[in-house]
Amino acid sequence: MKKLFNAADRMADDMIDGFVAAYAPVVVRGAHPRVVRRRHPKPRDEKVALVIGNGSGHEPIAMGFVGEGLLDANVVGDVFAAPSADLILEGIREVTGEAGAVLLISRHEGDVINGQAAVMDALDEGLKVRPLLMYDDISSAPKGEEEERRGAAGTIFIYKILGAAAETGMALDDLVALGEDVRARTRTLGAAIAPGVSPLTGQPMFALPDDEIFIGMGVHGEPGVARRKIGPVGDLVGFMMDELLADRPIEAGTPTVALINGSGGTTRMELLTVYREVAAILDARGVPTTSPVIGSLSTTQETAGFSISLLTATPSMLALWEAPQASPDFPRIYGAGAGR
Amino acid sequence: MKKLFNAADRMADDMIDGFVAAYAPVVVRGAHPRVVRRRHPKPRDEKVALVIGNGSGHEPIAMGFVGEGLLDANVVGDVFAAPSADLILEGIREVTGEAGAVLLISRHEGDVINGQAAVMDALDEGLKVRPLLMYDDISSAPKGEEEERRGAAGTIFIYKILGAAAETGMALDDLVALGEDVRARTRTLGAAIAPGVSPLTGQPMFALPDDEIFIGMGVHGEPGVARRKIGPVGDLVGFMMDELLADRPIEAGTPTVALINGSGGTTRMELLTVYREVAAILDARGVPTTSPVIGSLSTTQETAGFSISLLTATPSMLALWEAPQASPDFPRIYGAGAGR
Repeated sequence: MKKLFNAADRMADDMIDGFVAAYAPVVVRGAHPRVVRRRHPKPRDEKVALVIGNGSGHEPIAMGFVGEGLLDANVVGDVFAAPSADLILEGIREVTGEAGAVLLISRHEGDVINGQAAVMDALDEGLKVRPLLMYDDISSAPKGEEEERRGAAGTIFIYKILGAAAETGMALDDLVALGEDVRARTRTLGAAIAPGVSPLTGQPMFALPDDEIFIGMGVHGEPGVARRKIGPVGDLVGFMMDELLADRPIEAGTPTVALINGSGGTTRMELLTVYREVAAILDARGVPTTSPVIGSLSTTQETAGFSISLLTATPSMLALWEAPQASPDFPRIYGAGAGR
Repeated sequence: MKKLFNAADRMADDMIDGFVAAYAPVVVRGAHPRVVRRRHPKPRDEKVALVIGNGSGHEPIAMGFVGEGLLDANVVGDVFAAPSADLILEGIREVTGEAGAVLLISRHEGDVINGQAAVMDALDEGLKVRPLLMYDDISSAPKGEEEERRGAAGTIFIYKILGAAAETGMALDDLVALGEDVRARTRTLGAAIAPGVSPLTGQPMFALPDDEIFIGMGVHGEPGVARRKIGPVGDLVGFMMDELLADRPIEAGTPTVALINGSGGTTRMELLTVYREVAAILDARGVPTTSPVIGSLSTTQETAGFSISLLTATPSMLALWEAPQASPDFPRIYGAGAGR
């Protein structure tokens, strides 16, 4: 397998070594070596902590988003494996004080089971913690069954907006309610172009004919909803935007944030071209776009593909989305331009 | 070819459309549609402008580094093709005032020829402009023939440090001298693991056996200096660091900045692991590391590979390296950590 690692059983640990060495001014390893937390947290009795556990192999999400104005701790699982309930509990313990904590859970089976078990254990210990399930992928369950959907790149809206809100001192229940509101306003649809190689098997994670793409494939190669011949990117994005806007229509005049996420092996040239098409489609419908993020943030190794996430943000959500943060890997957000 | 584009002859233009739409608060298209410049430049008679032209297909470099504290303008060529002298001249004209301009030229044949011709034409027009050749790749010419070397990811040190210096009002000749000093203190060595696909041909850009890597290959597949069997990343990085430190020894106690650049198709997990090995090797030699950058900044489509660049920065260089900037794509730099 042509990947850069020392030993299969050290992939996540070696990565964390490099991460905490590189970004030591802002992050530090927790008491447990698989917990990465902020180096300088606010007094934990004054601020609700945001914690997430996830399998590694999808970087920079979520470890790269630990920092001021974002996450308080990330619990790092093995490659593509949800961390155990006990491990997630370690992360919750490290950062939870009187103000409590939100455990963010991207809705995938192992993450939900282990995350909910960790919350139960934390409650048993007298810690004030609430889970927030995150789901946004419209291809994983039909309209009307939103709570059955998977978490995809649109979860990044929740990370950032709740991160900024927690920094202002927002209380636990209000944070969870805000997260639910962001979730309700977010939709994501992805496309898979070509597989990356699994570090676990050394093999491609799925198979696709040379001229076909999947619409709606999950981050580990879960089945999509449609296959299409590859063609001009404008046609592909047009199809995907029709699906997104059918699932949750956006009225003209509603400020909308687009997040174009790369799966790892798609170039920045391509992602910028996708954004061009998304912005043009929204513009033609009279929908103003603002404060986009374009980047390979939630990846699946070097898989080629991308997703489009749309958030119709309230003014206060938008302010939180645009608020400064200090994490190693979250991109800069620049708002809406003059002269658009 | 499984790439996301509308038409082969519109790749660069469509990409620029997306870029200036997404980052309109900080960048704007120039009078010529292939020139991207800052939206809000300082009065151009008070600040030396920094301009660079380059072929597209290597994003985010260099377009993504246009912004306050960094570049004033980028002239965007076709995929893998240096922009013409006339086009580079358009970029110089747009941002050059009384204070003058530095044209940064990464040392590749077409870029040098066209860049130097553009400088001559600009001088003929009465513009005050100086070229700065950038070269850092130790695999492309032997020690003692540094000026024959190619530009590689270590050029990013020059962009950032000169960008911050120009913002302080440094004069043209001083900026060029500073750039030469940064260049003299920088060394880079890369490794190619697996080819990306050229958008021009739809074919892989080079061929490598399944268990081999090239050391020192250039960004378009130019021949390397050695082939190695792939093995533990610590062994590979050890070999590369020996080469780098033989080319330019670093004394114990000399603060050193490492830049780990991904070629596009190498995961963040792998790049962080490479940094772990680099930092450990420097630490074992008593060399303190500070303010690293780890990211896929100078890419060649989805090529798998990486490079290590080392800069032994003076205190003033380091301050400029760490100075704030406001570009779409340059990463945050966090300095050296407490408790390293």
